[in-house]
Amino acid sequence: MKYHKIPDETVRRLPIYLRGLQYLLDKSQKSVSSVELAEFLHVSATQIRKDFSYFGDFGIRGVGYNVETLIKQTREILKLGGTRGAALVGAGNLGTALLAYPGFGTYGLEIVVVFDNNSTKIGKQIDGAKIEDIGKISELKKRGIKLAIIAVPAEAAQDVADKLVAAGVNGILNFAPQFLSVPKKVKVITIDIAMELGRLPYYI
Amino acid sequence: MKYHKIPDETVRRLPIYLRGLQYLLDKSQKSVSSVELAEFLHVSATQIRKDFSYFGDFGIRGVGYNVETLIKQTREILKLGGTRGAALVGAGNLGTALLAYPGFGTYGLEIVVVFDNNSTKIGKQIDGAKIEDIGKISELKKRGIKLAIIAVPAEAAQDVADKLVAAGVNGILNFAPQFLSVPKKVKVITIDIAMELGRLPYYI
Repeated sequence: MKYHKIPDETVRRLPIYLRGLQYLLDKSQKSVSSVELAEFLHVSATQIRKDFSYFGDFGIRGVGYNVETLIKQTREILKLGGTRGAALVGAGNLGTALLAYPGFGTYGLEIVVVFDNNSTKIGKQIDGAKIEDIGKISELKKRGIKLAIIAVPAEAAQDVADKLVAAGVNGILNFAPQFLSVPKKVKVITIDIAMELGRLPYYI
Repeated sequence: MKYHKIPDETVRRLPIYLRGLQYLLDKSQKSVSSVELAEFLHVSATQIRKDFSYFGDFGIRGVGYNVETLIKQTREILKLGGTRGAALVGAGNLGTALLAYPGFGTYGLEIVVVFDNNSTKIGKQIDGAKIEDIGKISELKKRGIKLAIIAVPAEAAQDVADKLVAAGVNGILNFAPQFLSVPKKVKVITIDIAMELGRLPYYI
């Protein structure tokens, strides 16, 4: 099935819907209305109907959406079929926490290689992954790894990003509190933890 | 200055603009057009103009926005003046990484207390903060702490959230891969790392 281009803001909400729907399915709920889902996820029902309308119009008035179908279509749109390998750069506290983080599997992601520049860490195993020399990032291309996670200090992040892009990586999840300059074809999602916390005071 | 109610999606983008503007100010740039900012932050210029229009109309056609004024107003809207204390629950790898994370200060946030349920950790200091018994969460009310960060395993997160809400916390930054059910007056921002990475395949 082909879909129209979906706005970034909708793409951002789809994994949130996916998590909520999965929760309902685990509780054996077969169908859900946009109003019910809205209440549950604290998003407006209008927004939910609009977002799902990009998939084609398959909610039934008075009955709602079939939970299982909606999960299947959402996963398909997000291209979450199969498993993709990702590289992690930085084996400090944050990198170690990420390696131990449950739930990557839900989204078909697996950290298959870890890079660090600390010679005392290189060669060691953490959570089943071997830490390799950061100089070997260039080998990602021949290993076919296109996704990477940056968990290095801010001052090292741009250099790491440049090396990743040169090695053919086109999707980066960036945890460094640093704006990354990359070519337009490369998608960067920056998780700036302080920035997220920075949104909270507005609401309280 | 009073502002109109601003949509959540705009509030979400304001810290992104703030970071970009701060970067420009650090490079001594005095003014910026929406087109230039759009190019720089990979957001559409129309979106930027629309978001800033909630502040009142102070961009000057052909000249752009004054960088310093825009920073000041954005910080004011986000209520980022002064310093607010936050509690961190969970002193594992992720919690430790968060404590060492630079940049909270930029957003006027300071982790002033850490809670854990591991008796071998309680009483120890990490990064200048003392780890206290999780049973003492109820004391947050009398200490006037309204913000909290949850960095505990998924299965413990709801219980911790309930305790935080009972102790008067009304803003939670949640790192557990777990949907949290809280009263509507409490704002939860969940950072589900896998979920963020789950958006990447769509783009690549």
